Amino acid sequence: MPPVTSADPITDFAQLRDMVRHLPPPDLAAAAACRARDAELTKPAGALGRLEELAEWLAAWQGRHPPRLERVLILVFVGWHEIARRGVSAYPAEVTDQMVANFAAGGAAINQLARLAGAELRVVPVGQGRPAHDFTQRPAMSEAGCLRAIEIGIGALPWDVDLLAIGEMGIANTTPAAAMAAALAGEGGGRWAGPGTGLDPEGVSRKAAVIDQALARHRGAMTDPLEILRHVGGREHAAMLGAVLAGRLRRIPVMLDGFTATVPAAVLEAIEPGAAGHCQVGHCSAEPGHRRLLEQIGRRPLLDLGMRLGEASGAALAIQLARAAVACHNGMATFASAKVDQRA
Amino acid sequence: MPPVTSADPITDFAQLRDMVRHLPPPDLAAAAACRARDAELTKPAGALGRLEELAEWLAAWQGRHPPRLERVLILVFVGWHEIARRGVSAYPAEVTDQMVANFAAGGAAINQLARLAGAELRVVPVGQGRPAHDFTQRPAMSEAGCLRAIEIGIGALPWDVDLLAIGEMGIANTTPAAAMAAALAGEGGGRWAGPGTGLDPEGVSRKAAVIDQALARHRGAMTDPLEILRHVGGREHAAMLGAVLAGRLRRIPVMLDGFTATVPAAVLEAIEPGAAGHCQVGHCSAEPGHRRLLEQIGRRPLLDLGMRLGEASGAALAIQLARAAVACHNGMATFASAKVDQRA
Repeated sequence: MPPVTSADPITDFAQLRDMVRHLPPPDLAAAAACRARDAELTKPAGALGRLEELAEWLAAWQGRHPPRLERVLILVFVGWHEIARRGVSAYPAEVTDQMVANFAAGGAAINQLARLAGAELRVVPVGQGRPAHDFTQRPAMSEAGCLRAIEIGIGALPWDVDLLAIGEMGIANTTPAAAMAAALAGEGGGRWAGPGTGLDPEGVSRKAAVIDQALARHRGAMTDPLEILRHVGGREHAAMLGAVLAGRLRRIPVMLDGFTATVPAAVLEAIEPGAAGHCQVGHCSAEPGHRRLLEQIGRRPLLDLGMRLGEASGAALAIQLARAAVACHNGMATFASAKVDQRA
Repeated sequence: MPPVTSADPITDFAQLRDMVRHLPPPDLAAAAACRARDAELTKPAGALGRLEELAEWLAAWQGRHPPRLERVLILVFVGWHEIARRGVSAYPAEVTDQMVANFAAGGAAINQLARLAGAELRVVPVGQGRPAHDFTQRPAMSEAGCLRAIEIGIGALPWDVDLLAIGEMGIANTTPAAAMAAALAGEGGGRWAGPGTGLDPEGVSRKAAVIDQALARHRGAMTDPLEILRHVGGREHAAMLGAVLAGRLRRIPVMLDGFTATVPAAVLEAIEPGAAGHCQVGHCSAEPGHRRLLEQIGRRPLLDLGMRLGEASGAALAIQLARAAVACHNGMATFASAKVDQRA
């Protein structure tokens, strides 16, 4: 497998593409061991529904049976966007820095949810002071800048994590997310622009127009999914792509958050179908583009609670479901040990 | 409010009906205080979706702002059924006693899920050695027996609980649950019989026929929802009705589990619309009747994970969502305290 340490930086998109096309597969033996034990547990076959699926998913992608959830990490990648000046968010651009301070002080939603999930929370600023460029005017990032953000994402993930949840924060960052989704789908901004943090209909139209302007400008240059990321994405999206990739290389399953966090996984899937196979989607965002994107990449979210906050909030809730899956799988008695009769 | 202590037993269905028709309302002031604080928290309005709804629901029905989740109790009511002899379950009737032993030994799914949710688990046998009668032949319970089971449910709930989750176990008990749902809806058994723990299609047909036989026999006597419960229900269903009622009287919100646990709430709703207003439905069971029943009583489940185990397993998972709601509502910073700008 190609090197992914900071000592060996990824030199260009060609090397990264090659890496994405040669990712390690799931551990089918661990998955089979998981199914075999599941069949012995004191419950009807299938009665724990998606908890059974989660236990097997963790085993397959951790490469270990029984699966383990000792160290769970939540990474929240923060990005800054020149595009925020174009009236595409309900909040002023200053809120990004203010929320970073709020994360540090423990006052945000994700601080409470991480504690409840028994997860470590790290907030990773990506390019503070160097916002992604206004992509209606020029590419959002250079190739080197995009790779640097990807490496920040790779470097943010320690090797001994059992489950990684990723999310983001960055005023205006649903605009690049929607622009990437539109470019991946070959569709216009009107299909993908949504209210984000609470834009009014006029704002959503403005957002769609900004996206269409960017798509028109960069159409010829967006020759592959990484070029889409570079031209109309944000640094936090690039970092999330790196973290997802690092999870795969280090046998760490990944729990995705909402729309903005799913787009980088969709970029990987567009490079190589199955490249985000080690990811579950924690929660379907109320941001309309998320449900559409999940249909396109064929994923069923675990939760659907009408949330649209980002910050890995939906992924943090889904960590609890993964914990439930492991608690049942590893802790339940078997028919034999508990002397419970099997089916008549 | 009518007395509901064991010193003052409910004397007959008429008294119980009167009690259900005069239940205490939600605390609208606590709900308003919850909404007012929510608007100040460092997140876009509405961005926590159903977590915001849960915080307000807890405040309204606890009669307290901020809401509290210190003591959370899971009650699993266990019942025995003569109808199990008619081939309506995939498992032999002996499994009920075996699972009671498994609960006591800590080997069942709910033992693991209760621990994870930080909840106390109590398993309450209702009429061990006195199964509900085969209701194709005679009423499942006498009025006195049904009231006794209801009082077991009432008596199982301590006063100082902040949230109650209820569930059940009892081989064959989806048959009485489906019979009650069919009788409440004025429909046949074929509309409500499902595979339960995993019946094959032939078994499901047999179950539907057993229900139709019971409905035909008791149609004239099932003159109100409590008579439906008594004629074709089980003792654990009656006890769950009592526990739901006790929750309302003691300002303890109730988290319902799957199909079998929702039917008693539907019985209360049929007596008096809104009588189960203090209940949330934790999880939509894969048992097909549950989704239909939830549509009939106008409830949206919190989770939909394809589970069909009972044991309060779905409700236990939803406790975590209630904890998340309270953690965010009570723990987050406000725009003013965190110096975060509000909407532009």
